[in-house]
Amino acid sequence: MAEPGLAAYAGKQVLVTGGLGFMGFNLVQRLLRADAHLRVLSRSWPPILGSVETVLDGARFLHGDIRDAAVVEEAVEGCDLIFHLAGKSGPAASNASPLEDLDVNARGLLTLLDACRRLSPKVKVVFPSSRLVYAANKNLPIPETAPTAPLSIYGVHKWASEQYLLLYERLYDIRTTILRITNPYGPFQRPEQKSYGVVNWFIHQAMHNQPLTVFGRGEQLRDYVHIDDVVDALLTAGIAPGSDGMIFNVGSGRGVSFLQMAEVIVHAAGRGTIKHVEWPVDQAIVETGDFVADTSFIEGRLGWKARIPFELGIQDVVAKYRRMDPTSAFGSEMRL
Amino acid sequence: MAEPGLAAYAGKQVLVTGGLGFMGFNLVQRLLRADAHLRVLSRSWPPILGSVETVLDGARFLHGDIRDAAVVEEAVEGCDLIFHLAGKSGPAASNASPLEDLDVNARGLLTLLDACRRLSPKVKVVFPSSRLVYAANKNLPIPETAPTAPLSIYGVHKWASEQYLLLYERLYDIRTTILRITNPYGPFQRPEQKSYGVVNWFIHQAMHNQPLTVFGRGEQLRDYVHIDDVVDALLTAGIAPGSDGMIFNVGSGRGVSFLQMAEVIVHAAGRGTIKHVEWPVDQAIVETGDFVADTSFIEGRLGWKARIPFELGIQDVVAKYRRMDPTSAFGSEMRL
Repeated sequence: MAEPGLAAYAGKQVLVTGGLGFMGFNLVQRLLRADAHLRVLSRSWPPILGSVETVLDGARFLHGDIRDAAVVEEAVEGCDLIFHLAGKSGPAASNASPLEDLDVNARGLLTLLDACRRLSPKVKVVFPSSRLVYAANKNLPIPETAPTAPLSIYGVHKWASEQYLLLYERLYDIRTTILRITNPYGPFQRPEQKSYGVVNWFIHQAMHNQPLTVFGRGEQLRDYVHIDDVVDALLTAGIAPGSDGMIFNVGSGRGVSFLQMAEVIVHAAGRGTIKHVEWPVDQAIVETGDFVADTSFIEGRLGWKARIPFELGIQDVVAKYRRMDPTSAFGSEMRL
Repeated sequence: MAEPGLAAYAGKQVLVTGGLGFMGFNLVQRLLRADAHLRVLSRSWPPILGSVETVLDGARFLHGDIRDAAVVEEAVEGCDLIFHLAGKSGPAASNASPLEDLDVNARGLLTLLDACRRLSPKVKVVFPSSRLVYAANKNLPIPETAPTAPLSIYGVHKWASEQYLLLYERLYDIRTTILRITNPYGPFQRPEQKSYGVVNWFIHQAMHNQPLTVFGRGEQLRDYVHIDDVVDALLTAGIAPGSDGMIFNVGSGRGVSFLQMAEVIVHAAGRGTIKHVEWPVDQAIVETGDFVADTSFIEGRLGWKARIPFELGIQDVVAKYRRMDPTSAFGSEMRL
């Protein structure tokens, strides 16, 4: 696969917060191939204690929480570019624990921005927002100009985070690009993030010949996007002229029903079954209805477009999964 | 002046958070005339220590911070109606101290809502949002459907607060009405709230024959609304059928330039002078441009309309001011 813009990262001081999370780890793997000075901030330790070099060879690892001003200041000082991927995921989880979501996602970003303002005022911050900021909307595909009205605390704080970033650009010239990402899937998902990464969870279930649980008839459309495409979008946003101060949708632009997604996985895995159950209340309440992103804005302005068709993307993840030990836990398989 | 809906409050358990603030104290004075069971939560003590009865006769006073779950639970339990007026004001202040604004305004409301969900699930919460949630917009007057894009952390958290309330209505049937208030003025302003209550500050300055400082030419239009009108809107929203789940503008619907406001005050006071200075940077950055609210939605749906013309409202505040001791500090003058 081409590696858009990696050369442009040469010599830059680049920080990835949440660099051992699903999105972060995929981005870090790619950035390790650039000639950048890479810093990784995470509150998790790398998979094998003491072996930072095996997974983060050449990067500087900072162990700490995004709400800890001291470690954030150390991570941020003198940075050219920050990918702020640290945070809690999951709309249902955020509704169950709103204060925790506020603390990690809203206070975490404000802590980062305060450090940027004082210690790296020329920095650019690339931020993954979410399709979950949008109001339910039957007019597909959804452009960036569509109304926002989140159905979860998570979505409210994503919207607030977008506004913090745009405000810090206005107040302090800290540049930003915001990507509203649809439903990413791919390798290196953390095992506890079931609700965020249902595609990966289903692959795990199918490979273990377990049932894939579909709520209701599974007719809701989703816009699944392979993490390699998302990483391309992040890297493009980090260096593209014309990306500053902008909000872009990042998705495949194609609608796939939830049921169809499960069927593609069962087919690719050659195992697993599909099981329909009633919608659980906590899931039904955050269900947005059909969602497909209009990605013409980022395509026209930055030249980015998702390139991995869903069926091929699933085959890719299944193949990666097969190469690992199928008897160990999903998380450690996918991480190492 | 008529007292809309006070009879409908008879027998109700009503909590006013921030009940010793500018808006809160004006509302509490009115509610003390209703036959309600009134509770007042404030982190300030009433003006004269030990004399709660003199200003809050008949109300139950709870001393505590909106972020303190224990006192909030005590205040909320069994309430029918909450006016959530506790919080920090001022856009420039919020940009200087974003984490404090987050903590008081966002975490404070989430703490309140969590207590409501558990201890008074039938409650209704009336919330004063702000015109500062709107994007700068030259198409006056501004309706509730206009785009939102705050220029301050304060505005971001007002928008987030609106979304919390709408979400808790969806998730837990906690009813809400949100009022986007323009620029309120009137008696009982706290002396430290200069940026929030510039009209009151100017009256104070004029009465002391001091200069009233106008930034630039003072041509920006504002929608000044007398606090008695705002209190009417709050009381109407608390009990009106058809107000649940709605967002309403609350303003005079009339544009008055900043300079004109100062001139009206100097004229009413018969003292003071106007002094033009350059825009300070922290004020210029949060300046929204002209703002006049379109209040046709609340007028049509709830029958509320501002009734106090600006010139008469200013004369009213000046007259109240004259009846107090003109040599003491503004705050204690206006509070007692």
